[in-house]
Amino acid sequence: MIIVLKLHATEQQIEHVIQRVEGMGLRAHLSRGTYRTIIGVIGDEAKTQVAPLEAIPGVAQVVPILPPFKLASIEAQPEPTVVEVAGVKIGGGHLGMIAGPCAVESAERMDAIAAAVKAAGANILRGGAFKPRTSPYAYQGMGEEGLKILRDTGDRYGMPVVTEVMDPRRVELVYRYTDMFQIGARNMQNFNLLTEVGQTRKPVLLKRGMSATVKDLLMSAEYILSEGNANVVLCERGIKSFDNTARNLFDVAAVPLVRTMSHLPIIVDPSHATGRPDLIPACALAGLAAGADGVHIEVHNCPEEALSDGPQALLPEQYADLADQMRRLAELLGKAISQPAGAV
Amino acid sequence: MIIVLKLHATEQQIEHVIQRVEGMGLRAHLSRGTYRTIIGVIGDEAKTQVAPLEAIPGVAQVVPILPPFKLASIEAQPEPTVVEVAGVKIGGGHLGMIAGPCAVESAERMDAIAAAVKAAGANILRGGAFKPRTSPYAYQGMGEEGLKILRDTGDRYGMPVVTEVMDPRRVELVYRYTDMFQIGARNMQNFNLLTEVGQTRKPVLLKRGMSATVKDLLMSAEYILSEGNANVVLCERGIKSFDNTARNLFDVAAVPLVRTMSHLPIIVDPSHATGRPDLIPACALAGLAAGADGVHIEVHNCPEEALSDGPQALLPEQYADLADQMRRLAELLGKAISQPAGAV
Amino acid sequence: MIIVLKLHATEQQIEHVIQRVEGMGLRAHLSRGTYRTIIGVIGDEAKTQVAPLEAIPGVAQVVPILPPFKLASIEAQPEPTVVEVAGVKIGGGHLGMIAGPCAVESAERMDAIAAAVKAAGANILRGGAFKPRTSPYAYQGMGEEGLKILRDTGDRYGMPVVTEVMDPRRVELVYRYTDMFQIGARNMQNFNLLTEVGQTRKPVLLKRGMSATVKDLLMSAEYILSEGNANVVLCERGIKSFDNTARNLFDVAAVPLVRTMSHLPIIVDPSHATGRPDLIPACALAGLAAGADGVHIEVHNCPEEALSDGPQALLPEQYADLADQMRRLAELLGKAISQPAGAV
Amino acid sequence: MIIVLKLHATEQQIEHVIQRVEGMGLRAHLSRGTYRTIIGVIGDEAKTQVAPLEAIPGVAQVVPILPPFKLASIEAQPEPTVVEVAGVKIGGGHLGMIAGPCAVESAERMDAIAAAVKAAGANILRGGAFKPRTSPYAYQGMGEEGLKILRDTGDRYGMPVVTEVMDPRRVELVYRYTDMFQIGARNMQNFNLLTEVGQTRKPVLLKRGMSATVKDLLMSAEYILSEGNANVVLCERGIKSFDNTARNLFDVAAVPLVRTMSHLPIIVDPSHATGRPDLIPACALAGLAAGADGVHIEVHNCPEEALSDGPQALLPEQYADLADQMRRLAELLGKAISQPAGAV
Repeated sequence: MIIVLKLHATEQQIEHVIQRVEGMGLRAHLSRGTYRTIIGVIGDEAKTQVAPLEAIPGVAQVVPILPPFKLASIEAQPEPTVVEVAGVKIGGGHLGMIAGPCAVESAERMDAIAAAVKAAGANILRGGAFKPRTSPYAYQGMGEEGLKILRDTGDRYGMPVVTEVMDPRRVELVYRYTDMFQIGARNMQNFNLLTEVGQTRKPVLLKRGMSATVKDLLMSAEYILSEGNANVVLCERGIKSFDNTARNLFDVAAVPLVRTMSHLPIIVDPSHATGRPDLIPACALAGLAAGADGVHIEVHNCPEEALSDGPQALLPEQYADLADQMRRLAELLGKAISQPAGAV
Repeated sequence: MIIVLKLHATEQQIEHVIQRVEGMGLRAHLSRGTYRTIIGVIGDEAKTQVAPLEAIPGVAQVVPILPPFKLASIEAQPEPTVVEVAGVKIGGGHLGMIAGPCAVESAERMDAIAAAVKAAGANILRGGAFKPRTSPYAYQGMGEEGLKILRDTGDRYGMPVVTEVMDPRRVELVYRYTDMFQIGARNMQNFNLLTEVGQTRKPVLLKRGMSATVKDLLMSAEYILSEGNANVVLCERGIKSFDNTARNLFDVAAVPLVRTMSHLPIIVDPSHATGRPDLIPACALAGLAAGADGVHIEVHNCPEEALSDGPQALLPEQYADLADQMRRLAELLGKAISQPAGAV
Repeated sequence: MIIVLKLHATEQQIEHVIQRVEGMGLRAHLSRGTYRTIIGVIGDEAKTQVAPLEAIPGVAQVVPILPPFKLASIEAQPEPTVVEVAGVKIGGGHLGMIAGPCAVESAERMDAIAAAVKAAGANILRGGAFKPRTSPYAYQGMGEEGLKILRDTGDRYGMPVVTEVMDPRRVELVYRYTDMFQIGARNMQNFNLLTEVGQTRKPVLLKRGMSATVKDLLMSAEYILSEGNANVVLCERGIKSFDNTARNLFDVAAVPLVRTMSHLPIIVDPSHATGRPDLIPACALAGLAAGADGVHIEVHNCPEEALSDGPQALLPEQYADLADQMRRLAELLGKAISQPAGAV
Repeated sequence: MIIVLKLHATEQQIEHVIQRVEGMGLRAHLSRGTYRTIIGVIGDEAKTQVAPLEAIPGVAQVVPILPPFKLASIEAQPEPTVVEVAGVKIGGGHLGMIAGPCAVESAERMDAIAAAVKAAGANILRGGAFKPRTSPYAYQGMGEEGLKILRDTGDRYGMPVVTEVMDPRRVELVYRYTDMFQIGARNMQNFNLLTEVGQTRKPVLLKRGMSATVKDLLMSAEYILSEGNANVVLCERGIKSFDNTARNLFDVAAVPLVRTMSHLPIIVDPSHATGRPDLIPACALAGLAAGADGVHIEVHNCPEEALSDGPQALLPEQYADLADQMRRLAELLGKAISQPAGAV
């Protein structure tokens, strides 16, 4: 940590800052420049997390050197984490191919979609039972009934399942049905929810918030890791931008950026990132080419009847085409698409 | 609602769209242009909220005409809502002057700060007991002990109190101590939490999310209103921007923009919007001049010892100066700063 | 300047960095922390502007301490600059009240608008003769004929005039007619144009680019100042944001932020910042309350016939109302609205 | 075009709007809904470009149906444009692999870099002679001397060359030396410059502005096309975002988005988009996978001595590695990398 002092900081102020730093059990290293004086802080930077050094009179700026996340950092673990979702590996050369409808709507529809995405090569089935909707008047999901349908469908097709949990009061319920929790973008900084799923040992798909930096995303992962759950898969799903032609802005560079900062796997979700079926295939391939550990795609067999986010879903045949292209690209990149142990 | 068809939409597609619209009990009004065909949809637009019209083959774009929020809209209620927080009015010419520390840290500190902001003219006391912190290693608040201190301090100084609730499981607990719930920016789209506070009748200070549009903010207010709680005060507290010199970007135009769309009061929070004491006073005055119904300011008597967000707090004497300027501006604007009924 | 080395920087790399720094005539100050080694660079930071220190192997990050602009900085000149536009002062307590149509359209229309804004209290007349339009098919301005009309109208009403110059080849032509150059937002980083107006001694109204940080704006001002022209007035006119309800996002905090960094005056332009007449008055007052040195407003007597940007113009009577409110606010703030020497 | 009227628009206002529309030679098609009245405008929408319909009393919103660009639109030309740069094809399955240093610094350095990128498989050589720099104190380029070196180097290696032109006064000079003009991001809306290069018939590499939407980019292309120069290649090079970890945000979805709107080729520039060598290869591959018609990469043989943008350049050996991966990906995608006619 480096403390930059103000232009006309007094000797008394400088002395006060040094005392505060040393009072935390750290060493201060004074360096007087032509225009500015700076103080290097030597020792365990974590000690200074709660100390508002910037509020000390005479301080202009505090520059942290270490990332504020520890367990999620590449410094803590240089080799990539491989997360196992009921036998399906994500990370370290293994691709998680997640597909399914936005919301579970009925057993029949779920069955038809699962059959299609399984045939196309997906290895994890998705479907929402609790839906975070911007409007209180929009469809809110089937609840536990939806969880049962998802579980049952996944079992019949030999696919692990992932579904969103929005409320800390329902973590226990969702736990009983799912193989992987999804934390949605709107809940990336719902810290109570992160703590709850952190206390389980079930894999968590943590989606990046719409205005979260990659560092913010890793801080949220740190919440889960610090509770003891190391099975976190990050997901880039688009951020806010001034260009509203597509729903969000797909930040493909987040994939290699995470690689420089963390050992956690990261997948991409072009369905939410763009919200447009005509952009999804290109972005899915771009994500894989950038090194993503998997792709999350929404698929629906009748988008115009979908109760949630129909316009952004691919048709089963569009998904099959895309899955073909993704498979060939994965081969070129030397990546594997693993299947669950008991899968036929 | 207007449905714009694709350039080469077939007659069959057009017919299918019309059938879908009429199937919802609405009337379709076809209009063939030189290049494009459009269909005006006549009837109650609310019926179409769940119907993914954009997913119908041949449809290029769906343009809604009515805002998706109803109860919060200016159409629903043209006269401004006045929210009463234990006797203090906010809205319709009454200013809510909310001040206090970021977090409740001790009874002594809370007492000293309350004495100072009360003397300066604040009419509502704030203080956090549960803190949403980006880092799991940062100070998380005193919990119920903090709520007790806040309640007790408010009572002694005759000030209503406001404090944040982050977890739907704690709404009942916080309810017992506070006069007003605060929903923080990170929870603006925590829909389960909005539903819980919506089921009480206590005032809610709803902060705008960092990447929420004004429309999104009003949709979240609609969640609370639709549960029957009409006592919602909106709060502009800065949004994300490419210019990171200040912590966030203070969107002062949100104040007059809300006026054109909603009857709900809106206050500004320049402390979180800028995160810099050297910018807070100017932004507080700008907010009032733009027509805000109040100002939320963080005040701390020793920012360098603050356990949370010290660097952005004003000192009591800085707040007193600013409160003076705000009072003179309020007079020029013809606004009143009401005091609770029993206040001395 | 502080150079932060990578986690596993070798002794050889450290040595190489030190040699490079000393080779520039600067002193290097090594400081070894628990995790990282940093090098403080002492001496004239300007020498290092062209040296790509970040590209040296082993370097993780370079943190500049001094702002990259010199002449525009508050360090270079602590007292505020007052720019005189043909007798009208802007800065240091004097407000520039600029008003007029987006484009000069005819002598009659210009006359009617000038009469109205003069009567309302504006002290500088604006009008565009060369218009930067997003579409090649949109109205591009009257050219020299428009400059003549503007000059003539200003003279008849005793008002200095300001008009945009877009092309370095026309600086000479525009110079002959105007009292102040306007550099539009799209040309804020048209460095050849900045250099040309910098070589004159005529005041320049420099508008902030839509994606420029405040620092970028000051760097562009530095281009003009470094050519010898010290008469620069900055203008906040809205930046890009994810919320497209208004045309741009009015960054009112830029006003106090500039005060902490520069001695140059800064005015606000709520017409372009919002593009909506229903938001302009609130934002104009917000800008003044935040400390702006003036307000730039577009006024048109028949917006629906305007050849450019009609929908964002105020009507003359709306401007008169707003000017009244601005005058009363200016009095409260102790600011003066100066008139040109020869004005009646 | 659809005109949506205000909630309480009077009959007189509606009548006035219809008269205005019909006065432009268009037909108005009235449709009264439950809450709102809308007017469909039928006829040539281009006629209405200059008419500020939104400013007419009673009008709430104007919704254009056709894109405001014509010549650049996919409607105008469904098949992809192939631009030829002195024999090298870009578009329609042909990849432009542009590489070279940020700035031309000396004949020796240019020669070494050209040899390396040619050997690696690049087919167009880049190098800046006029540099747009944020700081007036930064290196501004070699000028005509740089153009000569670039031309000469390109000729010796049988590579067409591309270089930036910033000033309309220098279009003629640059024309004499280059095979392709580059319009930089900061000049994307320098309309006088666009007009000048539009009057030549030389290919233009048009870079997207940092806060330009894809529609804005196409509007700027339209400026060039409307002057008669059809040889425009678009370039995505990163836009502004709230996450400043990388220099800009690489908007890879712009590639498929342009495909839905325009016939013009689009390449990607991950060097400027990220500014970080550790992110460039992943983003280059992502761009190709998304369907880009080429990749623009900055290469320097000694980044720490580069006079401009050294930290973002790849080393020749890094470029060779990347070029290998790009070639294999191009094969998978069925794309060709063409060589100039006379090339060995």
